[in-house]
Amino acid sequence: MDLWYTENHTEEARFSIKIDRQLVSRQSEFQRIDIFESREFGRILTLDGYLMVTEKDEFIYHDMITHVPMATNPNIKKVLVIGAGDGGTVRELLRYDSITHIDMVEIDEEVVKLSKEYLPFTAKGLTDERVHLFFEDGLKYVRHKEGEYDLIIVDSTDPFGPGEGLFTKEFYGNCYRALNEEGILVNQHESMYYSSYAASMKRAHQRIKDSFPIAKIYQAHIPTYPSGHWLFGFASKKYDPVGDLDAGLWNNLGIKTRYYNTDLHVGAFAIPNYVKEQLESE
Amino acid sequence: MDLWYTENHTEEARFSIKIDRQLVSRQSEFQRIDIFESREFGRILTLDGYLMVTEKDEFIYHDMITHVPMATNPNIKKVLVIGAGDGGTVRELLRYDSITHIDMVEIDEEVVKLSKEYLPFTAKGLTDERVHLFFEDGLKYVRHKEGEYDLIIVDSTDPFGPGEGLFTKEFYGNCYRALNEEGILVNQHESMYYSSYAASMKRAHQRIKDSFPIAKIYQAHIPTYPSGHWLFGFASKKYDPVGDLDAGLWNNLGIKTRYYNTDLHVGAFAIPNYVKEQLESE
Repeated sequence: MDLWYTENHTEEARFSIKIDRQLVSRQSEFQRIDIFESREFGRILTLDGYLMVTEKDEFIYHDMITHVPMATNPNIKKVLVIGAGDGGTVRELLRYDSITHIDMVEIDEEVVKLSKEYLPFTAKGLTDERVHLFFEDGLKYVRHKEGEYDLIIVDSTDPFGPGEGLFTKEFYGNCYRALNEEGILVNQHESMYYSSYAASMKRAHQRIKDSFPIAKIYQAHIPTYPSGHWLFGFASKKYDPVGDLDAGLWNNLGIKTRYYNTDLHVGAFAIPNYVKEQLESE
Repeated sequence: MDLWYTENHTEEARFSIKIDRQLVSRQSEFQRIDIFESREFGRILTLDGYLMVTEKDEFIYHDMITHVPMATNPNIKKVLVIGAGDGGTVRELLRYDSITHIDMVEIDEEVVKLSKEYLPFTAKGLTDERVHLFFEDGLKYVRHKEGEYDLIIVDSTDPFGPGEGLFTKEFYGNCYRALNEEGILVNQHESMYYSSYAASMKRAHQRIKDSFPIAKIYQAHIPTYPSGHWLFGFASKKYDPVGDLDAGLWNNLGIKTRYYNTDLHVGAFAIPNYVKEQLESE
């Protein structure tokens, strides 16, 4: 049997993974959810046909979306996570004893249910008593919060479909208000290599810059995402992610990671000229 | 018409590019050479079916294989380039006025001929008077050289087929002897993400470490190469690529690059833990 999952990275570039078998195919209220088993990448979650998580390289994404802000400010206690239904972001956050409270707001309860059943490697922390789950729209949730969080992580889908609102000016402004004076906002920021998302991510970056005094972009090598050159946004009221990093302090925590380290933290903010130019161009 | 070029990154992962038309398909003495035209990636060169160069992202590879050693030692004058038939590496080297002499040793004259005809964007420097072309086996060429070069760049194909000898202990030892006391060796080092090459590249890295007192690995985001997380080897008799970088000096040269910059130079050497562990494991 020859079963392949194919994602169109553009209309003219495709990435295909050999599938052993399909475990789940379900239409939720918000999106189509599929889970596959593969030999090369282990279990794979897709939403509306777009690859979200593979067992082989999810550690890269989850390391970079959590440890970069946590190492920048090791005093983070209260965190809001938007999206992230697979649980991987919360799993990494729970490794910090300093974190006392995580609110996680996922629009689609089905994603959490299915992740708990089929993706235990990411979902294992979701029953921890520090985690408070809300199944609602993150865009609406954050409107009513003020000065409450040390860190907001926006672990969204792409800038269309259910996640579209999480790239708007209104949303970033509400995140600013929901954060306290030490607050950091980190979001998944797509790739700039293919022109399909480049324009909308440039707009998103400009909107974040309009809302926060500090707004930077950092990158990671995520082989199963389009182009493999994935970006994250780091915005904050006070902390500079490179200048304020205390590498010794983070290394003393003894958190063992497979991708992240404090040298790479600094290196991740050194983005190529062509990406900088695209982000800053008029 | 629906014409696609597909490369198997492993038996279970494929990358496919929509092709507008095929411009060349030729069997040389050493390998099969194909050149395609595509809308997303421009012109594409493949050897034995493996993607070598695309017009869209060749600048990333060529920036990183040349500017990293050149910024580490701005006094480099005499360079040996092995492989690199498309001409992109020589094109970047020629931007340095300090370089007075480039020997380029390419085993397959057909690759150079066809690149001059179909890939003028990379091949344009090959007729420069500072460039001396030799169509022979780099492995043999380097055996008879002693203390002659400031820099050797090994811009090879994969560690099998015609390029196989360029990953051996004998070859690295001969490169050491061919370099002067200031000498630097840079080589393309594949990716560690898929297990297919990981073992042979770990061996290659150990061999380079056995031959040179300084041996490091650095990385770049090259979307059209397997995994997009591409590695390069940096070995030298004297220079540390991070400690000895004089960023101000390089920036004063005024060389405009689309990928490389001196912050990224430092960041490129901050490789993920899982790659370090694979390279250093027993």
